[in-house]
Amino acid sequence: MSKIGIIMGSKSDLPVMQEAISILAEFGITTEVDIVSAHRTPEKLFDYGSKAHTRGIKVIIAGAGGAAHLPGMVASLSPLPVIGVPVKSSNSIDGWDSVLSILQMPGGVPVATVALNGAKNAGILAAQILGASDAQIQEKIIAYKEGLKEKVIETAKTLNNK
Amino acid sequence: MSKIGIIMGSKSDLPVMQEAISILAEFGITTEVDIVSAHRTPEKLFDYGSKAHTRGIKVIIAGAGGAAHLPGMVASLSPLPVIGVPVKSSNSIDGWDSVLSILQMPGGVPVATVALNGAKNAGILAAQILGASDAQIQEKIIAYKEGLKEKVIETAKTLNNK
Amino acid sequence: MSKIGIIMGSKSDLPVMQEAISILAEFGITTEVDIVSAHRTPEKLFDYGSKAHTRGIKVIIAGAGGAAHLPGMVASLSPLPVIGVPVKSSNSIDGWDSVLSILQMPGGVPVATVALNGAKNAGILAAQILGASDAQIQEKIIAYKEGLKEKVIETAKTLNNK
Amino acid sequence: MSKIGIIMGSKSDLPVMQEAISILAEFGITTEVDIVSAHRTPEKLFDYGSKAHTRGIKVIIAGAGGAAHLPGMVASLSPLPVIGVPVKSSNSIDGWDSVLSILQMPGGVPVATVALNGAKNAGILAAQILGASDAQIQEKIIAYKEGLKEKVIETAKTLNNK
Amino acid sequence: MSKIGIIMGSKSDLPVMQEAISILAEFGITTEVDIVSAHRTPEKLFDYGSKAHTRGIKVIIAGAGGAAHLPGMVASLSPLPVIGVPVKSSNSIDGWDSVLSILQMPGGVPVATVALNGAKNAGILAAQILGASDAQIQEKIIAYKEGLKEKVIETAKTLNNK
Amino acid sequence: MSKIGIIMGSKSDLPVMQEAISILAEFGITTEVDIVSAHRTPEKLFDYGSKAHTRGIKVIIAGAGGAAHLPGMVASLSPLPVIGVPVKSSNSIDGWDSVLSILQMPGGVPVATVALNGAKNAGILAAQILGASDAQIQEKIIAYKEGLKEKVIETAKTLNNK
Amino acid sequence: MSKIGIIMGSKSDLPVMQEAISILAEFGITTEVDIVSAHRTPEKLFDYGSKAHTRGIKVIIAGAGGAAHLPGMVASLSPLPVIGVPVKSSNSIDGWDSVLSILQMPGGVPVATVALNGAKNAGILAAQILGASDAQIQEKIIAYKEGLKEKVIETAKTLNNK
Amino acid sequence: MSKIGIIMGSKSDLPVMQEAISILAEFGITTEVDIVSAHRTPEKLFDYGSKAHTRGIKVIIAGAGGAAHLPGMVASLSPLPVIGVPVKSSNSIDGWDSVLSILQMPGGVPVATVALNGAKNAGILAAQILGASDAQIQEKIIAYKEGLKEKVIETAKTLNNK
Repeated sequence: MSKIGIIMGSKSDLPVMQEAISILAEFGITTEVDIVSAHRTPEKLFDYGSKAHTRGIKVIIAGAGGAAHLPGMVASLSPLPVIGVPVKSSNSIDGWDSVLSILQMPGGVPVATVALNGAKNAGILAAQILGASDAQIQEKIIAYKEGLKEKVIETAKTLNNK
Repeated sequence: MSKIGIIMGSKSDLPVMQEAISILAEFGITTEVDIVSAHRTPEKLFDYGSKAHTRGIKVIIAGAGGAAHLPGMVASLSPLPVIGVPVKSSNSIDGWDSVLSILQMPGGVPVATVALNGAKNAGILAAQILGASDAQIQEKIIAYKEGLKEKVIETAKTLNNK
Repeated sequence: MSKIGIIMGSKSDLPVMQEAISILAEFGITTEVDIVSAHRTPEKLFDYGSKAHTRGIKVIIAGAGGAAHLPGMVASLSPLPVIGVPVKSSNSIDGWDSVLSILQMPGGVPVATVALNGAKNAGILAAQILGASDAQIQEKIIAYKEGLKEKVIETAKTLNNK
Repeated sequence: MSKIGIIMGSKSDLPVMQEAISILAEFGITTEVDIVSAHRTPEKLFDYGSKAHTRGIKVIIAGAGGAAHLPGMVASLSPLPVIGVPVKSSNSIDGWDSVLSILQMPGGVPVATVALNGAKNAGILAAQILGASDAQIQEKIIAYKEGLKEKVIETAKTLNNK
Repeated sequence: MSKIGIIMGSKSDLPVMQEAISILAEFGITTEVDIVSAHRTPEKLFDYGSKAHTRGIKVIIAGAGGAAHLPGMVASLSPLPVIGVPVKSSNSIDGWDSVLSILQMPGGVPVATVALNGAKNAGILAAQILGASDAQIQEKIIAYKEGLKEKVIETAKTLNNK
Repeated sequence: MSKIGIIMGSKSDLPVMQEAISILAEFGITTEVDIVSAHRTPEKLFDYGSKAHTRGIKVIIAGAGGAAHLPGMVASLSPLPVIGVPVKSSNSIDGWDSVLSILQMPGGVPVATVALNGAKNAGILAAQILGASDAQIQEKIIAYKEGLKEKVIETAKTLNNK
Repeated sequence: MSKIGIIMGSKSDLPVMQEAISILAEFGITTEVDIVSAHRTPEKLFDYGSKAHTRGIKVIIAGAGGAAHLPGMVASLSPLPVIGVPVKSSNSIDGWDSVLSILQMPGGVPVATVALNGAKNAGILAAQILGASDAQIQEKIIAYKEGLKEKVIETAKTLNNK
Repeated sequence: MSKIGIIMGSKSDLPVMQEAISILAEFGITTEVDIVSAHRTPEKLFDYGSKAHTRGIKVIIAGAGGAAHLPGMVASLSPLPVIGVPVKSSNSIDGWDSVLSILQMPGGVPVATVALNGAKNAGILAAQILGASDAQIQEKIIAYKEGLKEKVIETAKTLNNK
């Protein structure tokens, strides 16, 4: 059964969003990937947002750029936690539009926003959310963070030996 | 029969949006005012956007603030020209979020964006759009602009007399 | 008879503005293209702005970059709806100057602003404006949007098959 | 047993953060509130971050302003999902510093960032995270959203009656 | 005979622009003040810009806010040096629109831009321009600067005595 | 005898500043070019600023990037009109630092700021300043502007023939 | 003998700069306060900058707003460490000009920049600099930080008791 | 014995930070270089920050990008002066996040911030701090500045000979 739904506004967002898919695969968490455009497929958006929680999705990750309405509109339609990834797409003004149109949601409808192009962190956050009630996944998060630490310490050694 | 549909994301946007209502009344153009929240009433948004053109609406004016998705989502659902009014609401970062999340629409789904809090201009633009195929309304626009000019010239005289 | 007047401040804006020309050709709408520089040909600007509506132009699309005064000055001179395209020209500060000097028009003189380099959307918006009183054009808009939707759905299938 | 840990960098952040406390109380979810300053009480920060998940905390909400390091540092120390609330404190440059120093976390250490001063949404997001694996809480979220919708529809009626 | 032409887009700019009038009066330089709106009185703008140099004006000071086209359009029409004063008007986004739409003029048509609301400096700059070929005015500038220096030194003394 | 003094903070600013030199050569106006670094040669700055007006310089053009103090400091030391050119140098944050540290001078000490990298306009502005009291130079400005106009009109013809 | 020289561009900066004076008094470190305007008293600036290190000053704290050249120019003239305080003065664009024109110094001439209006931190930093080679002052810094910690912990208790 | 501790958040910051290492080597000042990641090695951060002053470090230089917490967190833990270098890393939004999350520290915990990527200036500032109580190092600073001046004057000559 799928756990994390990953959607993006356009296939051109895939190189960025792939990092969320990959890190979740690394954690052994099932994902379901789709293209849902808030502006070009509003009916699909409506359908996706209202039904995701009824078919086993626990967390939604939504990436979009420019006037990025996908994460917020899905959050409007779903009771699930929605993680928004602002994508620095070619039509974006240095990423500011992507960031602000995802982050600045009105009271009542949160989007858990990560850094510009931060799809990897979106995947880790989704895993942490599952991990909040799943000790096995939380263990994997702890191990992953331990791995980050070790890599830094190894790299630091090469620096000191220089 | 109504000609211009005016919607806003929250009643708190009304003091700003009232200027669109008033200027259109001045032009003798019928308006229909409603609150449609992209994030809190998504079904109403879908209904409004997909049907407006079938019941005599010619232009939609949509005002919203913060991560302002209303104008873009209505534009996604309707074949009508949609005018977006970025509102500098209390939860906005100096209005930048309102402006960028309305203006920076992706290719295929335009929103005719006016200045921050520029609801008056949204009303005039709606009248100009009707006027493009209605000589009587275009005459009113020409007269309105003549009036603006005269007021400036009158004011300039008081300055010179000072 | 021409329907949409497309002007730009400099020939270097043409690669961006071509997208408006092309999409309107796709809709079968006649365009008339010219270079009018607010700063270098002010007389031509004056002539263009005051007469466009008298010779069959229904909507003006004006593109310019940097301190972009062309759209606003044409809007000042014409009773027609004016669509402004902020161009990210080489002398622009990341496009912010182009956007703000087109968008932030004072009360009384609107410019329907689209996204940075959003000439394609300017073309679609012009078609929507004509379509507000021309059922045949509105049908084309509806069909165009249907096409956008289908393309997304086709692309999404290739993704799911991956 | 406490479920949501709410911390802030300074007592001056409390008026903003109170909204998270209140909405979680409304959902019947237990909270534990504390002041932890990344810069003035680093030992407490280390202690809090490394132990929160061992004493029943499921989600951490951290609010701070200016160079806001509290959410990111807690996220560095804890395997739990951390929600960051950028506070527009008196020493902030219009809130941009608060937003960017919480949002722009490096790969590996996400912070689920909400809007500037968006503590209410932080509370709702925390409830949604719990709700991802707790059907009763998810039901409350669904009911809460239904309530938002009804309020908008009621307000819209008063507008139409005007 | 008038030497410096001072124009502004709206009477609401007068409190800011008054500082230019006053400092020039202090230097004993004649000014001629008028309201010329690029957007509401385009004919007056054309007339003013093309004729100012033929009736004894040596320098033009133009103040405007928002999408501020007045300084640039006058510079387009006149061979005179044009000083632009970005006014932080009520419809401005923190003054950025005023600054960028005056400063970022294309190659060929300069506007000598001063600080936001810097009308006093516009007046001094106009005097310096006259002073470049008028030894008497240059003497007054030197004396004025001497006065600034003395005031600072006097104030510094009160500080040291504190 | 030299008329226009052109200085820059570093030789790396020369490719930008060359445009001022060239356009002034085109107008037949003598220039004197030097490198004066506010931060590395403060004594030379002091010497240059206090003496320029005593040896025939009528206008100073100063270009600098980053925390660009050269134009303002020369303006502090000289009674001459100083034109500042914000240079988008490699150490600049998208040019914003260059623009703001030249433009935002305090009351009493103006710098006539032109667009980012706008050295050509600095040269034209310097010529306009000389032209304010030299009919022959003003004639050249008028002819130059006429040339700009003709070039646009010629280019527009090629467009229409397309 | 004085240890820390505190200068500011205008007496209007004193309410902000007073915090540096007060915290250094608290540490028992002698200060010498003066007004030195880069733009209005350039000779005093040159004198101050070139001689400060010869009369016992160990660190200079310089505060200024807008196009803030004082800290950078003093750093250009003195071999001492210079701490810059960006002041959000009335003529500043939200403080961005003050920050960027102090922070973005070119290679070779550093200014140790603190937060907008961060004069208190400038004082503490000056004490830390003295403390780097004065164990007694370093002890006071350690005690000061201990005091900050205790205050947070005391405040946190009142919160928990609430 | 080491004098200056140089740390950075990631090895990818080394090309920028190398300039601090090199200029300090040029001054004959010993440095100790390490990688300390606030987010991936919080324990190492804690250890480094609390002990640096006990083993002969006099000044800490810390470079980081994005949500850059390393300089501020080290400043929180150490009584030493901490110099922060905002690095324009690949995940940064044009460097604004790096600058603001280092600069905007709360009262009580200063970071001496230098320009974006300004590691060379961080090295010079560290030398100036040592020089405040070490006449030999101060002499080197004076000589270094003399060298900068001579280079500019030599370069200016080549320009004049052109």
